[in-house]
Amino acid sequence: MSFISTKPPAGFRDFPPELMLLRKKVIRRIEEVFEKYGYDPIDTPALEYWNVLKGKYGEEAEKKLVWRFTDPWSGREYALRYDLTVPLARFIASKGDVPLPFKRYHIGLVWRHEEPQRGRYREFYQCDVDVIGSPYPEADAEIINIILEVMNLFNFEEYTIKVNDRRILKGIFEEYLGIDEPYPVYVIIDKLDKIGLEGVREQLREKVSEEMTSKIEEVISLRGRPFEVLEEVEEKFASNQSVKIGVEHLREIFELINDLSKIFLDLSMVRGLEYYTGPIFETVVSKPRIGSLTGGGRYDELIGMFLGRKIPATGTTIGIERLLDAGIELGLFKLDRKTITQIYIVSLTDKARRESWRLARELRDRGFKVSLDLSRHKQSKQRKYAQKLDIPILIFLGEKELKENTVTVYSRRTGKRVVVSRNELADTLENLLKEL
Amino acid sequence: MSFISTKPPAGFRDFPPELMLLRKKVIRRIEEVFEKYGYDPIDTPALEYWNVLKGKYGEEAEKKLVWRFTDPWSGREYALRYDLTVPLARFIASKGDVPLPFKRYHIGLVWRHEEPQRGRYREFYQCDVDVIGSPYPEADAEIINIILEVMNLFNFEEYTIKVNDRRILKGIFEEYLGIDEPYPVYVIIDKLDKIGLEGVREQLREKVSEEMTSKIEEVISLRGRPFEVLEEVEEKFASNQSVKIGVEHLREIFELINDLSKIFLDLSMVRGLEYYTGPIFETVVSKPRIGSLTGGGRYDELIGMFLGRKIPATGTTIGIERLLDAGIELGLFKLDRKTITQIYIVSLTDKARRESWRLARELRDRGFKVSLDLSRHKQSKQRKYAQKLDIPILIFLGEKELKENTVTVYSRRTGKRVVVSRNELADTLENLLKEL
Repeated sequence: MSFISTKPPAGFRDFPPELMLLRKKVIRRIEEVFEKYGYDPIDTPALEYWNVLKGKYGEEAEKKLVWRFTDPWSGREYALRYDLTVPLARFIASKGDVPLPFKRYHIGLVWRHEEPQRGRYREFYQCDVDVIGSPYPEADAEIINIILEVMNLFNFEEYTIKVNDRRILKGIFEEYLGIDEPYPVYVIIDKLDKIGLEGVREQLREKVSEEMTSKIEEVISLRGRPFEVLEEVEEKFASNQSVKIGVEHLREIFELINDLSKIFLDLSMVRGLEYYTGPIFETVVSKPRIGSLTGGGRYDELIGMFLGRKIPATGTTIGIERLLDAGIELGLFKLDRKTITQIYIVSLTDKARRESWRLARELRDRGFKVSLDLSRHKQSKQRKYAQKLDIPILIFLGEKELKENTVTVYSRRTGKRVVVSRNELADTLENLLKEL
Repeated sequence: MSFISTKPPAGFRDFPPELMLLRKKVIRRIEEVFEKYGYDPIDTPALEYWNVLKGKYGEEAEKKLVWRFTDPWSGREYALRYDLTVPLARFIASKGDVPLPFKRYHIGLVWRHEEPQRGRYREFYQCDVDVIGSPYPEADAEIINIILEVMNLFNFEEYTIKVNDRRILKGIFEEYLGIDEPYPVYVIIDKLDKIGLEGVREQLREKVSEEMTSKIEEVISLRGRPFEVLEEVEEKFASNQSVKIGVEHLREIFELINDLSKIFLDLSMVRGLEYYTGPIFETVVSKPRIGSLTGGGRYDELIGMFLGRKIPATGTTIGIERLLDAGIELGLFKLDRKTITQIYIVSLTDKARRESWRLARELRDRGFKVSLDLSRHKQSKQRKYAQKLDIPILIFLGEKELKENTVTVYSRRTGKRVVVSRNELADTLENLLKEL
């Protein structure tokens, strides 16, 4: 057989136990937040027919970023899921009869044909939470409260949630600035964090006049405490009906937010996706520089594309990958466990092996996470193995222990070694594990 | 926009909350078994380069069943993951330095280009548990004990675990029957459950003589209690070294199994995959007729294909999809929850809405799973919604409750309605939830 690369494809990743143990724990805790708010899990296929995804993400995504392929057997065009929102819209349309509002979360892989680079992957998890069926600020506010709760849960401190509204943008850009098709302008403004103000200016100048560029810059410089900026926007632009509706909607959202100190109304935060129709929101951390940790908003037209009748919807993605990366960098998450195993039983002699097997069974029946030698290694090698995996507790079983019906328990963390009877063993282990 | 089908692609499925809640619960409980045995989670990409999968699954799978496609940008050939074993082998080879034995579980999607039909999907979860690095019966026995524990955990009763050994088969087929390349014969025997003995006979006759067909039939009719059949096999065939090694290995496995009453040694159970090299095992239920619930065995050569040096390995797939289907049909699993939500707060008046919002926050902070109206519905519609979702507990907040600082709590299960003070509320709810 010829040489085969053992690396995963470029832009794809393997996850060893230490990463998976952390990921699973973080995901489980996020799910618990969703569940407290009464959100239920759904799942949809990794593959969709291409025509389901077509026309939803804007031209750039469609031409470059969606993983499309033709099935050589059927000739049909498929695409790997690009996000979890379009599949949700298709799901709702296909069910037809779900009680509304439908509150769901969805944690699943998505694929993007990016140029692989540090922190940018071709396959990653998204974690979405959405309310389908309510046009009201209550739904948006609940989503933002969930974001706050997730960020606080993991003790992120220096973060802000930027809020804006596409109807405010639309009113200002169309009426006050006279730009009929503002979406391409949003796409440029959306790059602000990436390319800086000078970069945005440059790209704007290619599309609009120097004067217009200055005016746009003025608009997107509006940002600050939510009610203050709301007032400023209202004063300047609320003669426009679209702006007025947006302002009113945001005001009602702000009144329902659990902690306004984290919220900023920021007119430069426009979101890149085409399908947003109302409030939009994004979470950023000041350190590390990593882009937004969450992103979302209201998309009242998307489901109607499938269903024929309009169903309002709002929600957010929580960027698990960035959340993990940021949390690790900030020391909020620790990659400190190489294994879930709590206890390793060392068989000191061959005669002890059978008893080790029985003991492992007993302890597992009581809920302990137990490993023992499966490779007929000498005791020194067994110990070394437990050490390499950083298993916190070792139990030794040898001639002496068999004779006296005891075991020797060693805590690698404290360095303490005790001989205990088999009757006391479970209590001893529970106490040792509590100390960890 | 032209009409778009809202169905998932043929052979693919959407999972609404009631299915997901069950799936997640079942998967979580299986993970707990793996963890008690000290197995750690890993993950690998959904996509692999095609040459990683090539030559691992046999000709039929490769030609028809692997989802392959050419990336139109790079021209590279990719394939969707066909199982979790080959990616595991690549993973081990790429890490190089994991402490052995490496005990891992992996729950993830795999894709097969099957003809879609009832119970056969193009995308489904596999749930694998494997020991990498031990050539000894202890490793195989631990895997079989895990299977027993999973089956018992869910109260499956009429099931058996069929065990066999590829070395026994090899010895018998090569030496006693003189078949140099027995694998194509295994592929036919593997269809026994699907096409019946007569079907197997027919297909064998196309490959070998009538006489040989009878001889093969005789061999594969050997099945029964493990130690008894072992003796019979030993008596008849153990002059062959390969058979002898297989018999000895199985004997040691059987001695370490927690409950032999479920185990059968069955020479007709051969497994279809090419890469097995030693013990093989499969779990079947007598009802419903659904194929095997688990399947696995030892594959000592597979990792070497990537690594250049041999690393022994053994493990099993637990067929989550079939386990769920069988469990639902047998009444072991119930699809009885439409939502995770425990409590729905009904706002009887507009004035009560703000207080409902506060109350929801309080209860969520105490860990309850709470929903409330996000759609400005009248109270009758709020109640109807809670009823449709089968939410067990309703809390009513109206003028009277606001004035008296009470709430009315209604248990939909018992039909009981009580008025309680806000102080007592959490205790009341906890007690009601315990009763469910």
